Amino acid sequence: MSTSVSGAGEFAGRRMGDLTWPETEAAISQGTGVILPVGATEQHGLHLPLATDFICATELALAVAPAVNMVVAPTITYGSRSRPLTGGGQHFAGTTALRATTLMSLITDVLKEMLRHGFRRLVLLNWHYENSNFVYEAAYEALEGTPSAKMLVFEHGLNELKAETIQTVFEEDFPGLAVEHAAAYETSVMLHLHPELVHFERAVDDQSERRTWYDVIPPPQDITTKSGTLWKATRASAEKGRLLWSEIVPQVVAGIQRDLSG
Amino acid sequence: MSTSVSGAGEFAGRRMGDLTWPETEAAISQGTGVILPVGATEQHGLHLPLATDFICATELALAVAPAVNMVVAPTITYGSRSRPLTGGGQHFAGTTALRATTLMSLITDVLKEMLRHGFRRLVLLNWHYENSNFVYEAAYEALEGTPSAKMLVFEHGLNELKAETIQTVFEEDFPGLAVEHAAAYETSVMLHLHPELVHFERAVDDQSERRTWYDVIPPPQDITTKSGTLWKATRASAEKGRLLWSEIVPQVVAGIQRDLSG
Amino acid sequence: MSTSVSGAGEFAGRRMGDLTWPETEAAISQGTGVILPVGATEQHGLHLPLATDFICATELALAVAPAVNMVVAPTITYGSRSRPLTGGGQHFAGTTALRATTLMSLITDVLKEMLRHGFRRLVLLNWHYENSNFVYEAAYEALEGTPSAKMLVFEHGLNELKAETIQTVFEEDFPGLAVEHAAAYETSVMLHLHPELVHFERAVDDQSERRTWYDVIPPPQDITTKSGTLWKATRASAEKGRLLWSEIVPQVVAGIQRDLSG
Amino acid sequence: MSTSVSGAGEFAGRRMGDLTWPETEAAISQGTGVILPVGATEQHGLHLPLATDFICATELALAVAPAVNMVVAPTITYGSRSRPLTGGGQHFAGTTALRATTLMSLITDVLKEMLRHGFRRLVLLNWHYENSNFVYEAAYEALEGTPSAKMLVFEHGLNELKAETIQTVFEEDFPGLAVEHAAAYETSVMLHLHPELVHFERAVDDQSERRTWYDVIPPPQDITTKSGTLWKATRASAEKGRLLWSEIVPQVVAGIQRDLSG
Amino acid sequence: MSTSVSGAGEFAGRRMGDLTWPETEAAISQGTGVILPVGATEQHGLHLPLATDFICATELALAVAPAVNMVVAPTITYGSRSRPLTGGGQHFAGTTALRATTLMSLITDVLKEMLRHGFRRLVLLNWHYENSNFVYEAAYEALEGTPSAKMLVFEHGLNELKAETIQTVFEEDFPGLAVEHAAAYETSVMLHLHPELVHFERAVDDQSERRTWYDVIPPPQDITTKSGTLWKATRASAEKGRLLWSEIVPQVVAGIQRDLSG
Amino acid sequence: MSTSVSGAGEFAGRRMGDLTWPETEAAISQGTGVILPVGATEQHGLHLPLATDFICATELALAVAPAVNMVVAPTITYGSRSRPLTGGGQHFAGTTALRATTLMSLITDVLKEMLRHGFRRLVLLNWHYENSNFVYEAAYEALEGTPSAKMLVFEHGLNELKAETIQTVFEEDFPGLAVEHAAAYETSVMLHLHPELVHFERAVDDQSERRTWYDVIPPPQDITTKSGTLWKATRASAEKGRLLWSEIVPQVVAGIQRDLSG
Repeated sequence: MSTSVSGAGEFAGRRMGDLTWPETEAAISQGTGVILPVGATEQHGLHLPLATDFICATELALAVAPAVNMVVAPTITYGSRSRPLTGGGQHFAGTTALRATTLMSLITDVLKEMLRHGFRRLVLLNWHYENSNFVYEAAYEALEGTPSAKMLVFEHGLNELKAETIQTVFEEDFPGLAVEHAAAYETSVMLHLHPELVHFERAVDDQSERRTWYDVIPPPQDITTKSGTLWKATRASAEKGRLLWSEIVPQVVAGIQRDLSG
Repeated sequence: MSTSVSGAGEFAGRRMGDLTWPETEAAISQGTGVILPVGATEQHGLHLPLATDFICATELALAVAPAVNMVVAPTITYGSRSRPLTGGGQHFAGTTALRATTLMSLITDVLKEMLRHGFRRLVLLNWHYENSNFVYEAAYEALEGTPSAKMLVFEHGLNELKAETIQTVFEEDFPGLAVEHAAAYETSVMLHLHPELVHFERAVDDQSERRTWYDVIPPPQDITTKSGTLWKATRASAEKGRLLWSEIVPQVVAGIQRDLSG
Repeated sequence: MSTSVSGAGEFAGRRMGDLTWPETEAAISQGTGVILPVGATEQHGLHLPLATDFICATELALAVAPAVNMVVAPTITYGSRSRPLTGGGQHFAGTTALRATTLMSLITDVLKEMLRHGFRRLVLLNWHYENSNFVYEAAYEALEGTPSAKMLVFEHGLNELKAETIQTVFEEDFPGLAVEHAAAYETSVMLHLHPELVHFERAVDDQSERRTWYDVIPPPQDITTKSGTLWKATRASAEKGRLLWSEIVPQVVAGIQRDLSG
Repeated sequence: MSTSVSGAGEFAGRRMGDLTWPETEAAISQGTGVILPVGATEQHGLHLPLATDFICATELALAVAPAVNMVVAPTITYGSRSRPLTGGGQHFAGTTALRATTLMSLITDVLKEMLRHGFRRLVLLNWHYENSNFVYEAAYEALEGTPSAKMLVFEHGLNELKAETIQTVFEEDFPGLAVEHAAAYETSVMLHLHPELVHFERAVDDQSERRTWYDVIPPPQDITTKSGTLWKATRASAEKGRLLWSEIVPQVVAGIQRDLSG
Repeated sequence: MSTSVSGAGEFAGRRMGDLTWPETEAAISQGTGVILPVGATEQHGLHLPLATDFICATELALAVAPAVNMVVAPTITYGSRSRPLTGGGQHFAGTTALRATTLMSLITDVLKEMLRHGFRRLVLLNWHYENSNFVYEAAYEALEGTPSAKMLVFEHGLNELKAETIQTVFEEDFPGLAVEHAAAYETSVMLHLHPELVHFERAVDDQSERRTWYDVIPPPQDITTKSGTLWKATRASAEKGRLLWSEIVPQVVAGIQRDLSG
Repeated sequence: MSTSVSGAGEFAGRRMGDLTWPETEAAISQGTGVILPVGATEQHGLHLPLATDFICATELALAVAPAVNMVVAPTITYGSRSRPLTGGGQHFAGTTALRATTLMSLITDVLKEMLRHGFRRLVLLNWHYENSNFVYEAAYEALEGTPSAKMLVFEHGLNELKAETIQTVFEEDFPGLAVEHAAAYETSVMLHLHPELVHFERAVDDQSERRTWYDVIPPPQDITTKSGTLWKATRASAEKGRLLWSEIVPQVVAGIQRDLSG
């Protein structure tokens, strides 16, 4: 089996769900890999859709896949519980979470099936902070017993941004990515990718009254926000989204090319 | 809370993932219900995509939702193991199944979250034969403890067809719906809904050498087919798909109107 | 190891529980197979015992086993939840169900032990509609990793009946087997097998006010019956039971002889 | 609801599986309790059937039930792994065990259903040493949340025997009940209850070369026996069985009368 | 690999947690084994600490390890539910138990890791009656698939005591070890090992009003005691503890030397 | 019940395991809270013991408890799998991890028992990066259904350090805390707390050849180190440890005083 990472694969960049089984078989025999996008169904402020995380995960996978000869598996659209400090918390209407045990079983099952099909180059692309560790655990368990396979797990949607990008996007007061939930970053990316799903006129700048470095259960009101946006969403723009995307996509491509070559 | 079943709801027919959290909250307060489509990622012959089942489940939900004041939750895109007699079996490349325990946990978790949000009118719309019983079990467990909620579970994509529809679609030799996998029925529906995903020129008529009324593990080759199509796919047409759809959609709408009114 | 399917085996037709361990060892070395009967503890109308399903499963296994050189393992006497449309529902006193996860673990464990003992020809004989899919899943998982073994799963107690049998048993108005719960079919079989357990004088003809093609949770009263009998039980007779049995038993024997020969 | 413990109940002593649902309902309304017998499918030497434990559990339940106004639920016929020091070990053909998690789920599910039916006086009667603790755990979890119910758990088939009974049954060298597996005690009881299932002519006296007070995994050959009988089976007789039974049954009855009265 | 059982090993008797990873690697390469102590956090009367069981398990492991070339893994400090007849019951403040499924997973995971590290001589040393069977099950499952490893499971803290020891410790009225909870035995051992944790001045002699041979759920008050001590604690002394310890430690050492030699 | 957070509580700062049950009962009635320390058994370079994480968690809890009127529950000494980028990875001898499902069940069970005892002020103090999210999930599930209780979850051992502390401890090249595994930070703390367990003469400065922002399974050698130390351990000193400790302890105390007051 050839395991070329070049984009030359016949099925590179395709959604796996759109393939027939003979096409899938052909893709595997050509050394095509598979990306599993993982997101969440979670509140994203007054202006972004519940689907934001799984849309971003899917779009990133589709953007990356052609360059690395991979197909994109059906996205995991439900994720782990939203936490007040990073996602606003569970109490917003529509935030629909899985128990961690369910999420891990789900991902492990899907990845084991991919291995059974014969895929040997796998990528998990997560876009939901609260899925961290759960996706790694699931991937780790799935891979055991198949030493011929190799997998990258991207727990976070991006690596460090260039200083000038940070300056451009966040202007003078970059608060760190932890609170970049439904704020300038995600809003910009969504305006770039799916402006039709963004109610930008409803976007607000918000922040919690205080910010703890520990979690409180049940969460007091002052460690999250009323809007669900955790920082300044009004600073977003499609142009900033385009800029961010043009940094993120090559970062992921580079990682895969570096570590999933034959 | 009003629980009108008319289509007058502001969010009726919308994808829940496209809503913001305040819109979700508003929908719930207006008595809007929620449909959870459940499908599978499974081989569908030489000509239909792996996504066929979850596409059909999603499209049916979107077609039904406006008339019954419901939104459509993100689709469950992975289902239970494909069985040789009804889905061709697990050995086709790309057929990606969950363990039954995972599938049930997944559906139970999602439904419990919908109840937590305040939805009280719920529908599960399944389009994958092998998910039967698993989806019912999951729904049953999710509903326990919330007597104010009510749920319909459609395990099969349709009720009985009119005799003339059967005659039109299947012509003289209707084999029963059990083998209608990736054959005239599903191919017609896909040609109607998503012709761009159908390679109709590759469609074949096929059937297993013999048909057992019991399962064999591991399955012998002669109880399934080489193509994955279990009957006559070449008889399909977009026109037949339109006819079938025009029967199925009102059937489901009628069921919901009958049994999920306030 | 000889794996003769003829009835010549020394232990053919015996209850496995009645054997000593050296007899079990001898049976296995002679190529004897094993049948696992699976039933339920479930209401069966005003006149049939809760044990009806597991009695029928056990009796069928015992009737089949001699002809196919198999022993009969201790019966699984508890099954999955009764569903209103096919079993009357969970609300009848005495209907004692397992969670699906428990049922599947139970069957998987027992089958894995049978494989560990050395049995290589296995049959699962189910007589409870609601166990469908669960028993297949359990069998599928048990068999993985033992390619030398082969197993038949009979999810339903019978194949199609001859037209004249249907005419004889159900007379002019055969409603389909789905509603044949605690009605003419099962009552006849029980009158044939265990008349001492049948209170035929209490038998009634019944039917639900309406019949949905979907499930409703919680179930409304009009989709099930008050008696628990879902169709016409008074038409039953021991003679009809004998006729039915004389069709069912050879059907199962033929299946096993066809697909579990060495 | 009357919760009389006298034997006057209309259904006292009946197998629950033989009742119809209206009879079950009547029994519950009369304060009838339920006994769940739990056994195992396990080697019992050269002369006793694999079913010995579940037969004894069932027979004991049937013997006790009339006097305490209880019915007998379908027996749990598979138990926990056989241990070398007390049951001979897992390596004997036919010893068919459940994982502890399965056994506990099974018992918890059944008991919760009994509570759901309305039973408030419950007994678990275990006859398989290796089920200890597992059955208690399962019962404990089942009862939580139903403070109106009460349950007795008999983990061992008997209390202390009278000195003269020990002398009569075991003669001069009583080794303690721990090794009384498939030996004088169980053989006598089976000769009393089911002589047709005992191959007494094959019975042997046996003992392990040495007896450890700890377990060894995997077990060395010298801590168990070749025959599976762990002590002197040839000393058994139907008469001794009758004597033992006449002590055991009243012991259990007395316990129930003492602690499960209204 | 040398698997010497002599105490000559460089790391014999050390706490594994105190070693660096290169030391652990060296220990394994020298054939050193590992002891896993298992206890509980459970009431021990008015005078002994909640930690009594896990302290005793740890101290016994540390006392035994040097002589058998083993290290001592971090202790399992939480155990199974306290039972009224042997531990007083769950209702005493501070008695902190795990579900049996959790306890078994915990022990299985730890043991599998020890096997993965390369340990081939393993000992589980339990000091909490209610953990019986659970620890064996967990050990059994952990060892499956590693035939080169061998393990001893000590479910009980000691073997039979010498007659004169019993006479010395319990004086004229030895009640059996079953009720020796927080009484003369454990108090003496704790006075010997950790007098600073014993409030001997608060020790009482106690016993339940009656003693059943079966369990009652929920437990009536008269089968346990108010103090939590189940027999005569005031008879304890450090000297008796020293005597007991001098019998127990060599018993365990002898077992390991006998059955875990190379 | 008084829920004073002052240190005036009679049992403030005590190990819960050292208390008797009446003392535990008294502590609870005085409003005393409970801290559960969670660590891991994991390699910590050539010079620190496997126990480093659970020692630090325990010591931190003991240091904090007196000031906030809490007792310290027995420490969770096994944690989640070590990851190459933050802990070196699973392949170092002695790194003994639990499956995430086990770890979560363990923590949930312990916390639920604490709630059952009556504790209403709870703290989870984690000192093992890889336990993140798992401990939160477990705590979240434990607290559901007990709205009167409140809990803080410290996933990380510390908040931000003062700039001058960073300068003092790490000197010119602070790499971020992510790689501070078995390096200057932890080594200093251990030299301060338990110098007798530190082989400082074996400490090395190390770093991986490269540092990825994603995980690779199985991990390539160049993303972790040979020593297991991920940065400069030789810069550690007891004095730096004292300085760090004097910052960490008050940080945690302040958090608890702020958010767990009555």
